[in-house]
Amino acid sequence: MDWRQEIDAAAGRIADHVLRTPVVTVDFGLGRPVELKLEQMQHTGSFKARGAFNTLLSQPVPPAGVVAASGGNHGAAVAYAARRLGHPAHIFVPEIAGPSKIALIRETGADLTVVSGAYQNALDAARDYEARTGAMQIHAYDAPATLAGQGTVLREWEAQGLLAETVLIAVGGGGLIGGALGWLQGRRKVVAVEPELAPTLHRAMQDGPEAEVEVGGVAANALGARRIGRLGHGLALRHGVTSVLVPDAAILEARRRLWRDLRQLVEPAGAAALAALLSGAYRPEAGERVAVLICGANTAPDPLET
Amino acid sequence: MDWRQEIDAAAGRIADHVLRTPVVTVDFGLGRPVELKLEQMQHTGSFKARGAFNTLLSQPVPPAGVVAASGGNHGAAVAYAARRLGHPAHIFVPEIAGPSKIALIRETGADLTVVSGAYQNALDAARDYEARTGAMQIHAYDAPATLAGQGTVLREWEAQGLLAETVLIAVGGGGLIGGALGWLQGRRKVVAVEPELAPTLHRAMQDGPEAEVEVGGVAANALGARRIGRLGHGLALRHGVTSVLVPDAAILEARRRLWRDLRQLVEPAGAAALAALLSGAYRPEAGERVAVLICGANTAPDPLET
Repeated sequence: MDWRQEIDAAAGRIADHVLRTPVVTVDFGLGRPVELKLEQMQHTGSFKARGAFNTLLSQPVPPAGVVAASGGNHGAAVAYAARRLGHPAHIFVPEIAGPSKIALIRETGADLTVVSGAYQNALDAARDYEARTGAMQIHAYDAPATLAGQGTVLREWEAQGLLAETVLIAVGGGGLIGGALGWLQGRRKVVAVEPELAPTLHRAMQDGPEAEVEVGGVAANALGARRIGRLGHGLALRHGVTSVLVPDAAILEARRRLWRDLRQLVEPAGAAALAALLSGAYRPEAGERVAVLICGANTAPDPLET
Repeated sequence: MDWRQEIDAAAGRIADHVLRTPVVTVDFGLGRPVELKLEQMQHTGSFKARGAFNTLLSQPVPPAGVVAASGGNHGAAVAYAARRLGHPAHIFVPEIAGPSKIALIRETGADLTVVSGAYQNALDAARDYEARTGAMQIHAYDAPATLAGQGTVLREWEAQGLLAETVLIAVGGGGLIGGALGWLQGRRKVVAVEPELAPTLHRAMQDGPEAEVEVGGVAANALGARRIGRLGHGLALRHGVTSVLVPDAAILEARRRLWRDLRQLVEPAGAAALAALLSGAYRPEAGERVAVLICGANTAPDPLET
């Protein structure tokens, strides 16, 4: 697959539907500038809107519309994109997603079913709905149109003048980092950051892509994929990534710094990549320029509801 | 006073100390793009850091350091700038500032005295301290170095490619809008937005700069100056502004939209200018391009403390 070409095409398709998110260069007292892209400002509060729009705009959508199983950001993005493009959407949400993310999906106007138990139960329900209605299932991270959509983040960032040789990106199922690797084609170093309690890509790099990991911790509802996506994993093998793990405490401290230093309120997953830099889990060389992708802000509790 | 020259000089002085805050273009469903500058990301969460640094860098600071009376953003900015530049700072804070803003000032390491009663009591205490110690008093909005520092916001925005013919700016004591008018020199239309419950400039445009207004409402601790600054008022008369008032409900709705649509959590004052646009208090002409300055994010309660 020619990822550069796919991502160029995706960027053209979604241009009128997504936000060109801003970039800012910050000194976190590290003695070096850190470039940030504030992709958590994207519609529905995460990069997921890019993949969702690209998916819906690059293939025919059946009359029954779309269906997704998601604990949060993916579901909200699919629901939002479907509504904006005039398609029905049905989202199956595991109870563990929590009230804030469930409210976010409900707000889009999508049909929503809360499924008790774990994510797998929601996925089973979504598959059942797909079989019954003919709705199109949109996978959260392991589909070419999804990766190509997420890859537009790095394409856009480069057009905005990204200087860093090294980009830190949080990893859940591998859709975002896969898109980034597909766009960059080895032109910049990519650091894959995962919580110690959800080390999905890290384990896959050691044990192969079939490895199943236990996931938990503060970022589990966004980064807690139990198995890495094949596409993302393949791209990580081909282009190479530096895999880094961060403890939950470092994630929460990075989240606190984003509020204290920049008045950016993000969800834990959105601060994970920065945590690798601030905690020293990733230590750049002298003179190495670094950039951090801030990827999600669907924090709980909703700060306006408290 | 040659404001362009003053602001150029201020920009050079403060460049290493302030954040070049990002800009973003958003469609709030208004059928027109709205350019935003996210100045609430500035150090200490408001534009006030610019004026504070410019003041401290453009004149000799006495050994006793600096003193300010402030209910929040100005005090935090003075305390922060003083600390960064190695000067002692003492901030007198009226009790009504609330625990979040008081904590923000305390965090900078400045000496802090909480004064019971209204703002005037804190100001009296600050003047007393000034007389006793020889510390330099920094006025919150009515001093040339303050205005010149705040004027760098518009200078920077233009360098970032501001397109709009019209810029909406919230007004408290007139420091920010004064700096903007001084920089723009009539080259763009400026809309001055105030809460209905704190119509300080609005009243001064009718009754003269000595007018004293009652101030209250959701943005009072940032926009609640009882009397307009002479400098800001003079610039408003010279260059002309469109003065617009917004009810508190519109301010809170704009604040909600900034979170819902952009995941930007701001204080009420930070959303006031946008409120004028979203509520229709200011209605642009067909084809008129508009920009909104987002100016503060020191919201209470602290979203990470809840």
